[in-house]
Amino acid sequence: MVSFESDYIAGAHPAILKRLAETNLEPLSGYGADKYCESAKNKIKAAIGLEMADVEFLVGGTQTNAVIISTMLADYEGVIAATTGHVSTHESGAIEYTGHEVLEVPQENGKIKAEVLSQYLSDFYAIDNYEHMTIPGMVYISHPTEYGTLYSKEELTAIAEICHQYQLPLFLDGARLGYGLMSKDTDVTLADLARLCDVFYIGGTKVGALCGEAVVFTKGNKPKHFLTSVKRRGALLAKGRLLGIQFDTLFTDDLYFEIGRHAIDMAQKMKELFLAHGLKLFIDSPTNQQFVILEKKQLERLREKVVFSFWENLDDSHTVVRFATSWSTTEEDLKALEAALNSSLTA
Amino acid sequence: MVSFESDYIAGAHPAILKRLAETNLEPLSGYGADKYCESAKNKIKAAIGLEMADVEFLVGGTQTNAVIISTMLADYEGVIAATTGHVSTHESGAIEYTGHEVLEVPQENGKIKAEVLSQYLSDFYAIDNYEHMTIPGMVYISHPTEYGTLYSKEELTAIAEICHQYQLPLFLDGARLGYGLMSKDTDVTLADLARLCDVFYIGGTKVGALCGEAVVFTKGNKPKHFLTSVKRRGALLAKGRLLGIQFDTLFTDDLYFEIGRHAIDMAQKMKELFLAHGLKLFIDSPTNQQFVILEKKQLERLREKVVFSFWENLDDSHTVVRFATSWSTTEEDLKALEAALNSSLTA
Amino acid sequence: MVSFESDYIAGAHPAILKRLAETNLEPLSGYGADKYCESAKNKIKAAIGLEMADVEFLVGGTQTNAVIISTMLADYEGVIAATTGHVSTHESGAIEYTGHEVLEVPQENGKIKAEVLSQYLSDFYAIDNYEHMTIPGMVYISHPTEYGTLYSKEELTAIAEICHQYQLPLFLDGARLGYGLMSKDTDVTLADLARLCDVFYIGGTKVGALCGEAVVFTKGNKPKHFLTSVKRRGALLAKGRLLGIQFDTLFTDDLYFEIGRHAIDMAQKMKELFLAHGLKLFIDSPTNQQFVILEKKQLERLREKVVFSFWENLDDSHTVVRFATSWSTTEEDLKALEAALNSSLTA
Amino acid sequence: MVSFESDYIAGAHPAILKRLAETNLEPLSGYGADKYCESAKNKIKAAIGLEMADVEFLVGGTQTNAVIISTMLADYEGVIAATTGHVSTHESGAIEYTGHEVLEVPQENGKIKAEVLSQYLSDFYAIDNYEHMTIPGMVYISHPTEYGTLYSKEELTAIAEICHQYQLPLFLDGARLGYGLMSKDTDVTLADLARLCDVFYIGGTKVGALCGEAVVFTKGNKPKHFLTSVKRRGALLAKGRLLGIQFDTLFTDDLYFEIGRHAIDMAQKMKELFLAHGLKLFIDSPTNQQFVILEKKQLERLREKVVFSFWENLDDSHTVVRFATSWSTTEEDLKALEAALNSSLTA
Repeated sequence: MVSFESDYIAGAHPAILKRLAETNLEPLSGYGADKYCESAKNKIKAAIGLEMADVEFLVGGTQTNAVIISTMLADYEGVIAATTGHVSTHESGAIEYTGHEVLEVPQENGKIKAEVLSQYLSDFYAIDNYEHMTIPGMVYISHPTEYGTLYSKEELTAIAEICHQYQLPLFLDGARLGYGLMSKDTDVTLADLARLCDVFYIGGTKVGALCGEAVVFTKGNKPKHFLTSVKRRGALLAKGRLLGIQFDTLFTDDLYFEIGRHAIDMAQKMKELFLAHGLKLFIDSPTNQQFVILEKKQLERLREKVVFSFWENLDDSHTVVRFATSWSTTEEDLKALEAALNSSLTA
Repeated sequence: MVSFESDYIAGAHPAILKRLAETNLEPLSGYGADKYCESAKNKIKAAIGLEMADVEFLVGGTQTNAVIISTMLADYEGVIAATTGHVSTHESGAIEYTGHEVLEVPQENGKIKAEVLSQYLSDFYAIDNYEHMTIPGMVYISHPTEYGTLYSKEELTAIAEICHQYQLPLFLDGARLGYGLMSKDTDVTLADLARLCDVFYIGGTKVGALCGEAVVFTKGNKPKHFLTSVKRRGALLAKGRLLGIQFDTLFTDDLYFEIGRHAIDMAQKMKELFLAHGLKLFIDSPTNQQFVILEKKQLERLREKVVFSFWENLDDSHTVVRFATSWSTTEEDLKALEAALNSSLTA
Repeated sequence: MVSFESDYIAGAHPAILKRLAETNLEPLSGYGADKYCESAKNKIKAAIGLEMADVEFLVGGTQTNAVIISTMLADYEGVIAATTGHVSTHESGAIEYTGHEVLEVPQENGKIKAEVLSQYLSDFYAIDNYEHMTIPGMVYISHPTEYGTLYSKEELTAIAEICHQYQLPLFLDGARLGYGLMSKDTDVTLADLARLCDVFYIGGTKVGALCGEAVVFTKGNKPKHFLTSVKRRGALLAKGRLLGIQFDTLFTDDLYFEIGRHAIDMAQKMKELFLAHGLKLFIDSPTNQQFVILEKKQLERLREKVVFSFWENLDDSHTVVRFATSWSTTEEDLKALEAALNSSLTA
Repeated sequence: MVSFESDYIAGAHPAILKRLAETNLEPLSGYGADKYCESAKNKIKAAIGLEMADVEFLVGGTQTNAVIISTMLADYEGVIAATTGHVSTHESGAIEYTGHEVLEVPQENGKIKAEVLSQYLSDFYAIDNYEHMTIPGMVYISHPTEYGTLYSKEELTAIAEICHQYQLPLFLDGARLGYGLMSKDTDVTLADLARLCDVFYIGGTKVGALCGEAVVFTKGNKPKHFLTSVKRRGALLAKGRLLGIQFDTLFTDDLYFEIGRHAIDMAQKMKELFLAHGLKLFIDSPTNQQFVILEKKQLERLREKVVFSFWENLDDSHTVVRFATSWSTTEEDLKALEAALNSSLTA
């Protein structure tokens, strides 16, 4: 059955598998000390346009969030995140597992508004005994957000300025960054991220890799003895080549961007299909995740022919569902979706 | 340069890469809920001969040790391990990171002797105020050990009996289990492990996989909500297929055992080469890791032609080094080693 | 200057100091294994009317919350609390320090409404992949709440029933329990708490002791090796007598209740003073904390003569402040307050 | 029955109780922001002779060790301690609870020898992949040690120099510091500790207080937001006055030193009693704890008349027991001990 269940339903982009096979027998040192990790780091720094960046590879998104947040926060600090942030809700308490509180602030379309952040911080420091509370030590945002939305350069700049004012590092979760960068509706580039964020990551798992996230420290702020901290969190791969070769491939000949562009194209066409069939969007997402409102009966009939994800119940008779595209989405998939929509909705 | 640096210098066994490629485009659900994980679990249970076993996949060895130990111990408990145990020394404090103490006991050739364990426990409970100390809650052993040695069935049974007496789960770290099972000098089988251990893992990373360890809970004792505990430790792969397909391949047509057998054969031949060149072994290892004593000058000359690992300084003029074989070691590699030994030692 | 800053501005009730002096030279074993701890536990069990209860003493409120929550939750669980709960806001992340998430739910007058709790839990388990979230493992309520309000027996029963339905222990933070039990507006008794809660504590620090909280486990559910868990959290007093003697005194001749009654009487008179001076109450508290709304100018003038606490800014021109009574509040204090109100408000 | 069970068998020195009573009704702010804490800090700084020191009060010894170590170590660091160190054995894993490993080194009479420390560190940094291990981040010593022994100024200086060389803070656990400072056999003063240690604490609980330890940061190195870190560890007392008044009293008119001197005098006389009765000392302790070797029969008869502590079994027929003196030990106690020795040993 055709599936839009997520952007990690398929294996890896074929170019990655090919490269893994080509390099398979080369003897390489472990734990990231190999030439492919080195090469991948250099290509990422070139793509960002920041030679002084420190690039490190980790395995998955929740792991990356926990490692970054817990190695950059001081003992007494928590991380500010939107109530809908991945770290706030869908990581089984991975941040709390490291001993740190997630300080939730209200969101709009999955985004933290600069004025909300500013108010939160000025309110906090207006409290007499704020030392009896968790002290804000970082701001976490995701881009694209969990709702597929994007920050504009202006929004990002405003947030970065507040962070700067309060000396809080700005951490951008880019688990789906490729789709954000290639959206038709964005003015944010990798170079902007390097300038505005203190740390961010370039997601691999959801953008064509088998696994892997590339963390970028932009201000000479990579935590000391980072390898040791990574290892003690069980996040250090013995065969670091698995991450190095994948990112080296993704950042060769702009593959990472091509994957993003393809998924965006597919998502646009998918969105048009939904609208053409009279469906309403829960949110107007400019990226690879599309959130559609279905009546219960529509949902039941459609799920017999297409795989998608339940998102949330909107009201007693309507449900929000998610369809995701990726590098592996094909025109045939869209045709199958169209056929399914035709037969399911026109009863 | 020919390398015996470790058993994770190469990528994956070609059969694994082939299978990853064949299944690459199949849409599959994430987080381990796919048919390959299911199939791999069934094959492992069959290989062990224990239908009631629970099998779970994790990414790497240190991670696996930390997840197993921290989900199976009670708050107030620590894990008993040899002073040379991987959890005692080479995991950057990963166990302590989870809040638990490693209770170190003396070792012999990397192994815990049953009488040492027994004495430790009877001494502990003889202490008046033992409640002011960390309470032993598990016994950790590795097989093969960090020195390549193996427990005999008799030794393992004796340890298991003490564990049983004190109601301590016995956890066997099998990061290199394939090499242990295929050693010429072992009487321990997978079925023995299933019977004697409460939990153990079948190492993938060091036995032909890109990454991955298969944890086996043998007594209906898989921790409740294990997936949630794995996720909050950052150890849950979105593309669980990566682990499922690898282990499914390793446990098809006895590939896992074949890899073990090949590496053992290579290690035996390697050992004979060392002895034929008059070198002394630091320890008589029956598995894929061989520990050789070199004079400083020998070491310097040999390292120009072969890659191996520094292990420890024996005395002012002698050093212990480690050579490892794996599925990827070839007869050509051994010939290159022989040539290097010839030219380096006969000066 | 007369002070209503908090209910811990004075030392201990004189009867406690007297008893500490009388017993001072008796040699006693440490860590709670003394006859005064024993006696205090028996008196508390008698006061509760539950022989099978387990009573344990800890030093302070935040410590007690962290110890109880972290020893009773499973690894993957979090604790449900009101957004205004002490554990949610004023403990510097003490619960998160133990690795657990506080799952915040909306409150009304500081209380969790049964229907809100019920909805939260049914929504949670309706989520497909709730295993990717923190699993609710306990319900935390405070009584009196942080706003001085109280649950009725009916409200408490409704919450307990939901907890029972979901097999969640109900934990009641009674840091100010004495004031709750002696309120004129309560129908909740110690026996009710013993029946409805799985664990609660009888606050000492804020009810006449120098320090100390008495935890009551009501269902044979005291965590195993509790002393060890307490010790490793740095919460075990060497001179356990300090807690035993204090609680023994508090539960002799109903001193604990007498302290509560006195503070309630003083608070009632205080409230009448505020109302008589035309001040508005932020919340109608039936206990020893009174929350008053002051205009900025009123606040400035009043604080020259009386000590009280800033609570929160209501709007640009009004502030909420808190006045607390305790065992040490005297009629003279109230007269001083009246004089201060007279001179400050009648300008 | 006369007791030498520990140095915390009695309540507080009477001067402390008197002062608590005198100040009992004074309204004071909580959490250490009161004039007695202020005054106590100033007196301690004067006693040490270091105006720039930061003094903070905590409640108990294990708590203090855990707070200091966990707030001063970086994430990836562990603390070096003797195998007999309190943090290594008798704190139920309190240091590991904070996520940090205790790196145990061999001891002699409870002390770490400078050359052992030096060797440990040079060996550590000689290891190729030391980043895969816990990185030493602090040295912990106790003075007096758990065996009652003391470092000489020379020994302490040698350790401090190694710490300096490796940039490791030196932390001295002074739970029984008063007895160390007043020993006849010491050349170490408070001023020496201030100079040689980066942080140490002046024990109250075991030196006359009901509870309380005074931590001294000597190099402007008090961890940032220390109050918040203390609070989130459940270690912040609401009635901070309890600690302030006690230490203010202990450091008024040299009471702390007088207590130490008295206990040392009593211990000397006690030691003479043991020797006069032909008993052997397990260790020659110059402080208030005396370790005596008893035959099983002697032990049984003596324990009918005197309370003391079991320490360890020396061999099948001999046991080491501990007798402790304190401020509360009287000449009458010693006479009772003498009588007991007379009747128990002369059979």
